[in-house]
Amino acid sequence: MKRYAQTILLRPEKRAYYLELHANPWPAVIDKIYECNIRNYSIFLLNDRQLFAYFEYVGSDFEADMQKMAADAETQRWWAETDPCQESPDPEGKSWWVNLEEVFHA
Amino acid sequence: MKRYAQTILLRPEKRAYYLELHANPWPAVIDKIYECNIRNYSIFLLNDRQLFAYFEYVGSDFEADMQKMAADAETQRWWAETDPCQESPDPEGKSWWVNLEEVFHA
Repeated sequence: MKRYAQTILLRPEKRAYYLELHANPWPAVIDKIYECNIRNYSIFLLNDRQLFAYFEYVGSDFEADMQKMAADAETQRWWAETDPCQESPDPEGKSWWVNLEEVFHA
Repeated sequence: MKRYAQTILLRPEKRAYYLELHANPWPAVIDKIYECNIRNYSIFLLNDRQLFAYFEYVGSDFEADMQKMAADAETQRWWAETDPCQESPDPEGKSWWVNLEEVFHA
């Protein structure tokens, strides 16, 4: 199992819609997350501006599983709703969610 | 079980020492974390500047357990090393690590 943490910015004017979506996530999206070997996935919000995600990956090919998720039509529809709520913190715009480095585990 | 996420800033000039400490944490500190009902505790670093912690609390009185941890002499010695590596992101200086709000879990 590998732990992941990622961050992205929330557009303040989209806060209410983003929270509404995530309070009632679409079942097919949740199923696909599980099918793609992600467990214990949480998203947290800091100061209405920064999102922080934590999850555990239990598969053996993360890139392949992420490609499978990205190819799912219902997930694409979900992202069409959530992506406009977010903006990347990456100044070079190369990534969307930005990965953090694990420095401690107990 | 309740999930927590917290953030604090890392002083860039203390990065190397902070990482060294957390790569070889003191066993008594790890034991105290467990004794205080914290599980699956990870710390992640973003851009050498922002720390994010994730953990799961399995006890029934978080405040009491945090007081127990704060009263532990070895934990106090650990914090005497780690606190100077950090600075609070709270502009009002009321908290040290700042809690995030959970907005999604799957």
